[in-house]
Amino acid sequence: MTREQAAALNRVDPLASVRDRFVIPQGLVYLDGNSLGLMPRGAPERAEEILGQWSQRLIRGWMEGGWWELPLLLGDRIGSLIGAEPGQVVVCDTTTTNLYKALLAAADLDPGRTVIVIEEGAFPTDRYVAESVARRIGGRTRVTSRGRSVDDLLDDEVAVVVMNHVDFRTAEIAEMGSTTETIHGSGALAVWDLSHSAGVLPISLDHWDVDFAVGCTYKYLNGGPGAPAYLYVNRMHLDRAANPIPGWIGHAEPFLMEEGYRPAPGIRRFITGTQPIVSMSLLDAALDVYDGIGMSELRAKSVALTGLFIDLVDERLGLEVASPRDPQRRGSQVSLRHPDAAGVYERLVAAGLQGDVRPPDLLRFGFAPLYVSFTDVWDAVDVLAGVLEA
Amino acid sequence: MTREQAAALNRVDPLASVRDRFVIPQGLVYLDGNSLGLMPRGAPERAEEILGQWSQRLIRGWMEGGWWELPLLLGDRIGSLIGAEPGQVVVCDTTTTNLYKALLAAADLDPGRTVIVIEEGAFPTDRYVAESVARRIGGRTRVTSRGRSVDDLLDDEVAVVVMNHVDFRTAEIAEMGSTTETIHGSGALAVWDLSHSAGVLPISLDHWDVDFAVGCTYKYLNGGPGAPAYLYVNRMHLDRAANPIPGWIGHAEPFLMEEGYRPAPGIRRFITGTQPIVSMSLLDAALDVYDGIGMSELRAKSVALTGLFIDLVDERLGLEVASPRDPQRRGSQVSLRHPDAAGVYERLVAAGLQGDVRPPDLLRFGFAPLYVSFTDVWDAVDVLAGVLEA
Repeated sequence: MTREQAAALNRVDPLASVRDRFVIPQGLVYLDGNSLGLMPRGAPERAEEILGQWSQRLIRGWMEGGWWELPLLLGDRIGSLIGAEPGQVVVCDTTTTNLYKALLAAADLDPGRTVIVIEEGAFPTDRYVAESVARRIGGRTRVTSRGRSVDDLLDDEVAVVVMNHVDFRTAEIAEMGSTTETIHGSGALAVWDLSHSAGVLPISLDHWDVDFAVGCTYKYLNGGPGAPAYLYVNRMHLDRAANPIPGWIGHAEPFLMEEGYRPAPGIRRFITGTQPIVSMSLLDAALDVYDGIGMSELRAKSVALTGLFIDLVDERLGLEVASPRDPQRRGSQVSLRHPDAAGVYERLVAAGLQGDVRPPDLLRFGFAPLYVSFTDVWDAVDVLAGVLEA
Repeated sequence: MTREQAAALNRVDPLASVRDRFVIPQGLVYLDGNSLGLMPRGAPERAEEILGQWSQRLIRGWMEGGWWELPLLLGDRIGSLIGAEPGQVVVCDTTTTNLYKALLAAADLDPGRTVIVIEEGAFPTDRYVAESVARRIGGRTRVTSRGRSVDDLLDDEVAVVVMNHVDFRTAEIAEMGSTTETIHGSGALAVWDLSHSAGVLPISLDHWDVDFAVGCTYKYLNGGPGAPAYLYVNRMHLDRAANPIPGWIGHAEPFLMEEGYRPAPGIRRFITGTQPIVSMSLLDAALDVYDGIGMSELRAKSVALTGLFIDLVDERLGLEVASPRDPQRRGSQVSLRHPDAAGVYERLVAAGLQGDVRPPDLLRFGFAPLYVSFTDVWDAVDVLAGVLEA
């Protein structure tokens, strides 16, 4: 395939113009939207608006500027991208803290079970939090061997299973519906980390009866560096599940400032403290980018981009592809194996291709379908070819 | 006292010009800096700078833009305002989450003790978190009767005592040095919430041997709505204290992405997840305001402001002052009692005076010495007099 043929794919891409909603640095091929998404063009204006509210309306900005409702408003907006009906998602805190809250809240629902199952190779934070929570509830973790399913580890001691929807190293997709059903079959609850899938893969949390889910918003959702995370609690648990880190904002009547804690009805109880409004608002601006875009067309473009990349890698580089070749099992990322991944990475950056690197030997490339073009894919492989030949 | 006499006090105020470092809305007397501080003039430029780094440097902003070190850098900057030598304070998460981490970390240091002592009338979140942590460690809380000291509740079952440095309702100061000594005398640890004192009161955490402390940054520290909070861990505990919500960023070698958790040396282990960089950076800009200003001169001005307010209230209003009349025992706030506090509050706002209200009957006025002037005090009482007469 020639660059001209890749350009022809851009011309028939129904999402091609969405790229204009982002600021794209000159001369850079950016394949790291799975680490930090590009800045949407609407972000600076939104920041200015919030600073204007802060400086002029001050404390009254909480109500007049809508800051107070932002965690729930943004939660519902993200909910619409992950298959959650309104009232089950809140944006707040970090993914780490939300995972901790989800795991403890899930474990507390059935105190007779004290084992947390997690996969070998899960994102490190998920593993660390699972172990901390397991110790806290007087239990322990069980860890799958890499590549083995969790099924073998399920029994009536298992309280919760933590699953990564898309593997951060290889982009392999875990099948959410059937896995959740299997987990439920053993009487355990399922907590899914959507950090590497939300915004690029169709997800049906409600339909698949997922119990809890968490994720970050600075990767494919383009919320900006360290933008607040989200927590989904299925409405079947909302009446009984308790926030283990309860704060006044999650109280049923926060402004009464009562001595006794009474949780707010619904998902509001899971807001843990006062949230960073400027960073929250940039996420709000970033979610505007999704207006009018369907997840199935995004997924189709994502599959086309990663498929083209793998084809060109096979044709021109001959590097080992560490991601699934079956598009059904592959997220919006392709990882390549190279013994000097770290060295190659630095040379790629110098040559204008931003991917990233994960130890010991993976070069990772993310293909955010909102803004990555087919010529980006061609150019990336061209840069790779040049660097590897040199 | 006449308004002209108040203006004369402005002219001899050595901090008068600091007011120019803030954006002050036209026609507003703002006495709510104890809820949300004014916006420093440097904030918009800092936001623009960070958005520029995000949009142009993208993932490389984490290192090149210094985002990665911000939690520790800002921690040390706040440390210098609260008497903590470098390496013991980290800026991250919310006050609620940090208090949870502090209480669990403190309780974990001596698992034989399972009681948490807290004062009646503490900030509601502190009470809720204390109760949640106490249940989590298989213990319970003991609560003082309002106004009684914690001394009577101390024994060898007490793991931790949570203290509010300045009472959010009355601004009464709790004596930090001697109280901490008493707490230590019983073998318990002291966790202080500095939300209503940091930035306006001299605090000597190291000198007073405080074990843990937390606080928010959007009140007197002017970090903006929901700006990230901070956590102090005394270096005597840093080797042994564990973050109960461990994340990859707090790992000794975060980029190795290991399966096993090894905490980073020092305070870094207490960073829980990826922090909201734009909101963090606004706090950085806000702390610039403190450059060249000593805490003792801030405290002197604060005492003068609150003292003048009380004098004028006595002279013109005759309302009950709910805050200590002894300036040594009074933070940077004065509360007045009124049976229709909520109604009066709304009329004050309509007349250009922004204070706030706390149930059941308190009007609260905060006097941020960085920007409140003596004529603000005079004008506030004048507005109060007009509203109360009407």
